[in-house]
Amino acid sequence: MTMNDFNKIFANYVDEINKAAAYYVSADAFKGRESSGLEAMLDAMAYSLGNGGKRIRPVLTLEFCRLCGGDYRAAIPFAIGAEMIHTYSLIHDDLPCMDNDDMRRGKPSSHKVYGEANALLAGDGLLTLAFETVLSADVSADKKAKAALELAKAAGVSGMIGGQVMDLSNEGKKVSLDEIRATDRLKTGEMIRVAAVMGCIAAGADSEKIAAAEKYCENIGLAFQIVDDILDVTSDDATLGKPVGSDSQNRKSTYVSHLGVEKSSEYARQITEEAKAALDIFGSEGEFLSELADRLSERKN
Amino acid sequence: MTMNDFNKIFANYVDEINKAAAYYVSADAFKGRESSGLEAMLDAMAYSLGNGGKRIRPVLTLEFCRLCGGDYRAAIPFAIGAEMIHTYSLIHDDLPCMDNDDMRRGKPSSHKVYGEANALLAGDGLLTLAFETVLSADVSADKKAKAALELAKAAGVSGMIGGQVMDLSNEGKKVSLDEIRATDRLKTGEMIRVAAVMGCIAAGADSEKIAAAEKYCENIGLAFQIVDDILDVTSDDATLGKPVGSDSQNRKSTYVSHLGVEKSSEYARQITEEAKAALDIFGSEGEFLSELADRLSERKN
Repeated sequence: MTMNDFNKIFANYVDEINKAAAYYVSADAFKGRESSGLEAMLDAMAYSLGNGGKRIRPVLTLEFCRLCGGDYRAAIPFAIGAEMIHTYSLIHDDLPCMDNDDMRRGKPSSHKVYGEANALLAGDGLLTLAFETVLSADVSADKKAKAALELAKAAGVSGMIGGQVMDLSNEGKKVSLDEIRATDRLKTGEMIRVAAVMGCIAAGADSEKIAAAEKYCENIGLAFQIVDDILDVTSDDATLGKPVGSDSQNRKSTYVSHLGVEKSSEYARQITEEAKAALDIFGSEGEFLSELADRLSERKN
Repeated sequence: MTMNDFNKIFANYVDEINKAAAYYVSADAFKGRESSGLEAMLDAMAYSLGNGGKRIRPVLTLEFCRLCGGDYRAAIPFAIGAEMIHTYSLIHDDLPCMDNDDMRRGKPSSHKVYGEANALLAGDGLLTLAFETVLSADVSADKKAKAALELAKAAGVSGMIGGQVMDLSNEGKKVSLDEIRATDRLKTGEMIRVAAVMGCIAAGADSEKIAAAEKYCENIGLAFQIVDDILDVTSDDATLGKPVGSDSQNRKSTYVSHLGVEKSSEYARQITEEAKAALDIFGSEGEFLSELADRLSERKN
């Protein structure tokens, strides 16, 4: 796959995702259910959902659906559901009682724009709307119920939320490499995993393919975190788009504080190869995701 | 139906609800999915979910399931899902950035016990677990998907959350009776309605029965609010279990501030009769819910 081909496919996915994301938080999507409260919430939800990050999770949903023989368009509501959960978690994470971050991706965070109460409710709204969106998909009731159940488990207290709690309690403590891995696996890993799994479910994939998707995601998720830690010490504010050095300033235990930059890089490269190996059962069709794994491990921001 | 019969049925439902609620936030329910983060959350979620209110919503789920010819036990996960959403909304409502309430049902509110960050996350956790619980029910995928979708719509930005936003923006303003009704219909009415509708769905009820359930709920929900407003001016702290006079202190527009106590009481009685009339299609089987409507309108706290 040429760089150009990859970029085209990726850009097409992101375009579809951005269009769908905008629709699901628009007045059009709520015809006949209007209220003054809804209006205020749509505005706040659209602000955060539109302030797009890399859209890795929804891209995984769409590509795994295609890779498992489905029409990726059928999986768009699943993809948006995953992105809504990711977005709500950032809104709540930024609140003063959590990380107290005034900025998110170069823009004022939700509570700086809409106030704390509305940011809290917009987060609740996106979390709830994620399930409405997944359950409104034009696929069988069986697939919808399965995808929504997986999403609830991954996003919940035994998944992402559990990881957030662990992250909060790790603050200011010396944390072992195993504990860091366990925290990341839940805090970010579970939502990456379930985004891919929902794509597989949309395509009616068998358990072998779902297991391959999970293995791929586990490894790119971990590599993603390691690269994050490396960039925090090797990058600069302008390239990274946020202040570097925050981990050491917060005396946070990271892969880098445990292994150093060089060994961390080696580790990231190694698990990126493991991620790519998990794609073997898809043959040459796995090329896009193989390239994606490389890109994520070589990224500069 | 004698007072004794009603009390027995009600107590049996509440007993089943309390047992199931305790189970769904216990370590047993999460076997094989343990983490240190999960443990902290289960504790906080159990604290609030166990601090039972009247359990009106889940009782409606179970009784409407029975009334529509189903086995009410099949609807227990739907009933608990509704109660989890109700509970999360109270936890978030009590947070300092919202109503800033230190007490809830005579006990310290969640953030006073667990801190703001954990209370926020416990609320998120209950909201997410509500969907996991509904989608884990032992009924057809079709019923699960339908119930979870209805729940998401009722709890979301065009439902309960939209009503919360309206309530926040009504604060300190003179609000018309129509606006009060519109706010209450979303803020509390939608969750009461969907609790009943999920019971109907569990039983496979037809649209005529679902419409009757909705009509009953709309009226008892409205009556409930009116009685709340009346008790705030006619009761005393000890009987009510919370400080009276808060509405006038907050200069809140209420049914009573618009209509006075006497006309409000009359209005509550009138719509309670409308609620009971909606039960006609169920014949003598509707007796329990008819009695429930009377009890709610005559309650002293």
